[in-house]
Amino acid sequence: MLSWIDGGPAAAVNLQNRGLAYGDGLFETIAVRAGRPSLLDGHLARLALGCQRLAIDADLARVGEEILAFSSQLGDGVAKLILTRGDSQRGYAPVAGAMARRILQGSPLPSYPAEHAELGVQLFACQTRLAEQPLLAGLKHLNRLEQVLARAEWQGSELAEGLMRDGQGRVIEGVYSNLFLVREGVLHTADLSRCGVAGVMRGALLEQAQVLGIALQVRDIAFDELALADEVFVCNSVYGVWPVRGIPALKLNWSPGPLTRKLQAVARTLLDT
Amino acid sequence: MLSWIDGGPAAAVNLQNRGLAYGDGLFETIAVRAGRPSLLDGHLARLALGCQRLAIDADLARVGEEILAFSSQLGDGVAKLILTRGDSQRGYAPVAGAMARRILQGSPLPSYPAEHAELGVQLFACQTRLAEQPLLAGLKHLNRLEQVLARAEWQGSELAEGLMRDGQGRVIEGVYSNLFLVREGVLHTADLSRCGVAGVMRGALLEQAQVLGIALQVRDIAFDELALADEVFVCNSVYGVWPVRGIPALKLNWSPGPLTRKLQAVARTLLDT
Repeated sequence: MLSWIDGGPAAAVNLQNRGLAYGDGLFETIAVRAGRPSLLDGHLARLALGCQRLAIDADLARVGEEILAFSSQLGDGVAKLILTRGDSQRGYAPVAGAMARRILQGSPLPSYPAEHAELGVQLFACQTRLAEQPLLAGLKHLNRLEQVLARAEWQGSELAEGLMRDGQGRVIEGVYSNLFLVREGVLHTADLSRCGVAGVMRGALLEQAQVLGIALQVRDIAFDELALADEVFVCNSVYGVWPVRGIPALKLNWSPGPLTRKLQAVARTLLDT
Repeated sequence: MLSWIDGGPAAAVNLQNRGLAYGDGLFETIAVRAGRPSLLDGHLARLALGCQRLAIDADLARVGEEILAFSSQLGDGVAKLILTRGDSQRGYAPVAGAMARRILQGSPLPSYPAEHAELGVQLFACQTRLAEQPLLAGLKHLNRLEQVLARAEWQGSELAEGLMRDGQGRVIEGVYSNLFLVREGVLHTADLSRCGVAGVMRGALLEQAQVLGIALQVRDIAFDELALADEVFVCNSVYGVWPVRGIPALKLNWSPGPLTRKLQAVARTLLDT
């Protein structure tokens, strides 16, 4: 598949790259349809926040232009951007003045079963807990061993996603998506100031919910609240919104409800599908 | 400098490598003198534990042989081994049956000032705290953003290392070394079951302390215990043991003591310097 480094075709990265050495960087997973990247402003805004918090020096205007040019060549697919602090010799100390390295990789759009969006998905209840690290919380950085361990906990296609909790058992997110629940007409999603990834689709849905006058709360969600929810859904910037039908291991079940359907339609518009 | 991938010369790794994508792997930093790697058994034992806990499939006998051959070519220097879960397409799910990729990189032995070992070093008091993640604690895995952030907190050469604490303020380790304290003849170092890297030199010193009949405790160390310590030292498998003279920001000072000097000599023997 198509891949670029710093704006030109390349398939390999040199061994001094700090992304490889320490996971010292950020990434974005961008849906591309008909040569156009979806939610580009949201992806760039999250990158900007990540660069600021990790003190990574990147030319984000150039990154944006490269994503546009790359998407245009890709046509339909997923463009994954990895932005690393660049190269350095051995040692954790960042090199002053090093410019970030921009890696773009294309892959086909995943072909999820249509039932995921129509009937909903079932979740695995992951045992891997998310550690609390406020300095990294919310960012889509390259330190993703927790997600790798969580995703390795189940096989097979019956369970499309995994529920991730923090060390206190609070409900945080899916392994590769954010989670919302609806109770008495109010939308709830986890506060991500201690752990979790603040997804671009999550941000866009929160914004649209406000525009639509939907009551919403971003806060800590206790595990027991899942059982009280009227609707549950997961979202990300590739597939949009999937209703959650249940978590078999926890004997929890829900039906897709009106707020889920409304936000699913919003996500479809945002993703231009 | 010399670099190998999977046993042959190579300077770049392909973009599907899971080390780059997710920090999905482990590393070891091995001192090499006169073509011989120091503490090889300790490094291989820690790798074996890491592979087991991350479910990475690696031929560690072959890794050991490659480190020996690489060291022989390197002569004097530091051999850094990165062992990643191998390659995969986009997605956190590990690929069944994928063999680990073995990356070796050589660099010169660092030239630390002789005073570090003789008179001791001063520590910076890092604000970056170590998150608690029992599934990863102790391992030298590739998710090292906490160390990058901590190391970026100070510049200049007057402070040779940084003190890292956990979210509760407990004393855990240095940014690139482990920390010991001595009080009334007893050696203490942090329990690393919730966070921290279990250094190969730390393990070797604990083993030798037992052989030498030195009383030792591996346990949680409260921040206040630093002020009560008679001696403090840091260690790693490249420089051995450095006495800690003080932590200026915390107005703490120590003098190199007899137990520090004894274990420093042990480390010199282990590193063959």
